[in-house]
Amino acid sequence: MTTEFANRDPRETVHPHNRAHTPGGSSSGSAAAVADFQVPVGLGTQTGGSTIRPAAFCGVIGYKPSFGEFSRVGIKMQCHNLDTLGVICRSLDDVALMRAVLLAIDPQPVDRASAAPRIGFCRSPAWDHADADTQALLERTAAGLAASGATVRDVALTPAHILDHHRRIFEFEAARNYAYEYEVHGDKLSASLRDGLLTPGRALPLSAYVEAIETAEAFRRNLDDLFSEFDVLLAPSAVGEAPEGLGSTGDARFNAIWTLAWTPCLTLPAGTGRKGLPLGIQLIGPRFRDEALLDAAAWVEARLN
Amino acid sequence: MTTEFANRDPRETVHPHNRAHTPGGSSSGSAAAVADFQVPVGLGTQTGGSTIRPAAFCGVIGYKPSFGEFSRVGIKMQCHNLDTLGVICRSLDDVALMRAVLLAIDPQPVDRASAAPRIGFCRSPAWDHADADTQALLERTAAGLAASGATVRDVALTPAHILDHHRRIFEFEAARNYAYEYEVHGDKLSASLRDGLLTPGRALPLSAYVEAIETAEAFRRNLDDLFSEFDVLLAPSAVGEAPEGLGSTGDARFNAIWTLAWTPCLTLPAGTGRKGLPLGIQLIGPRFRDEALLDAAAWVEARLN
Repeated sequence: MTTEFANRDPRETVHPHNRAHTPGGSSSGSAAAVADFQVPVGLGTQTGGSTIRPAAFCGVIGYKPSFGEFSRVGIKMQCHNLDTLGVICRSLDDVALMRAVLLAIDPQPVDRASAAPRIGFCRSPAWDHADADTQALLERTAAGLAASGATVRDVALTPAHILDHHRRIFEFEAARNYAYEYEVHGDKLSASLRDGLLTPGRALPLSAYVEAIETAEAFRRNLDDLFSEFDVLLAPSAVGEAPEGLGSTGDARFNAIWTLAWTPCLTLPAGTGRKGLPLGIQLIGPRFRDEALLDAAAWVEARLN
Repeated sequence: MTTEFANRDPRETVHPHNRAHTPGGSSSGSAAAVADFQVPVGLGTQTGGSTIRPAAFCGVIGYKPSFGEFSRVGIKMQCHNLDTLGVICRSLDDVALMRAVLLAIDPQPVDRASAAPRIGFCRSPAWDHADADTQALLERTAAGLAASGATVRDVALTPAHILDHHRRIFEFEAARNYAYEYEVHGDKLSASLRDGLLTPGRALPLSAYVEAIETAEAFRRNLDDLFSEFDVLLAPSAVGEAPEGLGSTGDARFNAIWTLAWTPCLTLPAGTGRKGLPLGIQLIGPRFRDEALLDAAAWVEARLN
């Protein structure tokens, strides 16, 4: 089951490996059902971290394509600038298959014999929020992939405060897209949605929204430049394991960066943390080069411990 | 009444000044009802030329805001990269009012004492398709505004073949967004929609779509540069007067350019053509500077003959 309006207020779905933990969200049911082998593939939308985060928490693959490629007809839109339809499944082959289905194009099989990628290790401006397990996993993975033949170099993102701009776009657009629900059924909305997102979004000046859009566009151009030197970026998929308790779906900051970026990204399962719950690593490719990202992900997947 | 799926196949609405002519489309009913004083304001969406063109044909004001600003919730989407909600009305004050209403911001009155604008006269790559009345109107208007104190210089757009890229984006996305209608109710669709738009869209390779998106983004960056030298661009609103006959809503090429550009634009009534039907001139501003466009439009409106 998804959360309230694909936002942050959870529903009944629990983590498939430990019922006391959240499966993440908003695509809670998709991730849990795929991880529990109830279904081979699920759909999710990502405005903040709603596809990658639950997939990482549940120990499966999550994939968010280049913004704009998958049709969004039928989706309850909360943020036209960010909402991206994604896929949760258990193999890269299924990602490639679903990509062909959703784009109505011929399937393009994953190339499992691609050359070692040039990897940018992007701890990101949110790095200090990653827990020790996640930081260790990422450092170990970067070193391991370098030892396996990949070129791995550290990269920094500019501008650094992009999460603030993601938040502004989210608030401003959601306040307008949920205006009917807010005005007519405000008492039925969760406090986190109503008071945490929509009310601040109504108070945000248009100029702040426009500045955020323009900053996001500059960020994307900077990423285009960065990808002239790298095939993929390596980054955390989440802060850590799925948090205990069902009151929150977890922290989306490691995902919101790449939602704003409009870049394709995916999370691969990469062992477990200290509570025995899954951890993931995230790979990000340049916009509209999703097939190359899948090929690089296959190279990485084959070399994860 | 709008056309079929806000596309090109007309319905019963006729031109308010001559029932043998199309009111334009797709926002046929909005434009005709506003021009006929049945309503003070109408809404329209523009994917090609569906707001500006019918407004120009009917002799009223049409306004398409910066792409992304007005919420699109409730709109049947045919092309997420292009569909823009716009306003059709009879005064710039109503444009400013509707802008405040639709953005849920405080009204920002039109400044009718702004300085003479720097105007780029943009005949555009479609110029040869404009009829003699329209070409003469635009040349006369450019000269008249210069005589009134505006700086007017000719500008060219790059790349020149942007209409081909607009078409590709339209076809590719519409084919996917109307997949249900095509698959399940294809026999109920008009031939112009089904065979003219959706079938070619299904055949278009993903690579051609991506190339079109990337070309559009380069076009927008070129426009950003251009607007460092100009406050507004002056361009035709349509090929000419509303065509006779109700089988077509007219040619959208002078509008599709600016839909692809994501820039705000508006059409002002500017006299009549040889059949006695309205003509319009189009003004285009830089993205997210819609208020400045309205101010410049007020300056121009006060100086039209």
